[in-house]
Amino acid sequence: MGSAAAPWKSLLLSALESNAQITHSRFLHLATIGGNGRPSNRTVVFRGFEEGTDGIRIYTDSRSRKIEELKTCPFAEISWYFTESWEQFRISGRIEVVDASCLDATKFKKRAEAWSSISPKSRMQYLGPSPNLPYIAEQPAKEPVLDSCSGPVDAFCLLVLDPDQVDYLNLKSAERKLFKAIPCLGRETLWESERINP
Amino acid sequence: MGSAAAPWKSLLLSALESNAQITHSRFLHLATIGGNGRPSNRTVVFRGFEEGTDGIRIYTDSRSRKIEELKTCPFAEISWYFTESWEQFRISGRIEVVDASCLDATKFKKRAEAWSSISPKSRMQYLGPSPNLPYIAEQPAKEPVLDSCSGPVDAFCLLVLDPDQVDYLNLKSAERKLFKAIPCLGRETLWESERINP
Repeated sequence: MGSAAAPWKSLLLSALESNAQITHSRFLHLATIGGNGRPSNRTVVFRGFEEGTDGIRIYTDSRSRKIEELKTCPFAEISWYFTESWEQFRISGRIEVVDASCLDATKFKKRAEAWSSISPKSRMQYLGPSPNLPYIAEQPAKEPVLDSCSGPVDAFCLLVLDPDQVDYLNLKSAERKLFKAIPCLGRETLWESERINP
Repeated sequence: MGSAAAPWKSLLLSALESNAQITHSRFLHLATIGGNGRPSNRTVVFRGFEEGTDGIRIYTDSRSRKIEELKTCPFAEISWYFTESWEQFRISGRIEVVDASCLDATKFKKRAEAWSSISPKSRMQYLGPSPNLPYIAEQPAKEPVLDSCSGPVDAFCLLVLDPDQVDYLNLKSAERKLFKAIPCLGRETLWESERINP
């Protein structure tokens, strides 16, 4: 899953730090392959790195279309532009879907921790009607009630993108660097990097 | 190519207007299918609508990887988030590549007009070394000189995305609307729309 020393990670952490006061600096655009074979693209929120790895965390509704898409083709590319520092990261890799059907103890725990980290208001979104279905104006008679101590609801899904290529572009310095993971059997991912033309 | 009355267009024009003072409101994220069958995603600049149609214009370098990709699979999806008004547009459609090899008189003229509309500084980018190739530190002895009256250089390429589906989400009002072009043989595109769950 990558080492703490992935050379692109320090660039990304530094971009996040220098843009920390801007809420939208945590918004990125995630492309997947749609069910019709066409590209699919949407805005999602960066939820930090998976502890001790380079895995990029995203929370989503398991009833959203991207889940079907990722189950057919697990590859995705992030396009992430930092509006203050003029830096672009294109992060390509495979996404692991950690949903309610996941029985692995470690992953089960990670999903539960992710759920407990979000605000009560954010949690309520996962209790709403299914995304993409036609909107029905009548609301349920009672607002659903969520016990603050209970575990994640079925619709809550954790995605972890494990990067294998990062294309970094700095529009202020006109520098561009391409980082590629070197396939290897060891636990730690090795990276090669090259400066390329912007 | 669509009519002036495409129902999503007024929403997009109004988002552009209410976010007009923010430079990055014209930056959008364009997903295509990469040569390896994986998704590909990058930041590009919105250059307005093609006159009299709903076509979305983007300028790019014909040596960039997206051109190869679009020649294999012309479909793309834009993810566009307006940070002030909290609106997301996902715009899906087919892209037409108008490059130096295009002999159609109308398209030739459109590409020339696009070239003359950009700043001298932007034009110089298309004279630089080929994107994606390894960077070579030595600069050419002389800066290339561009005659301000001459036509587009070979590397200058106009892309026009012709939308056939627009998924609009307003995060302030929690309203989401899906617009779909109805296939028809006439000149004017008809659209159907439906309110769906966010």
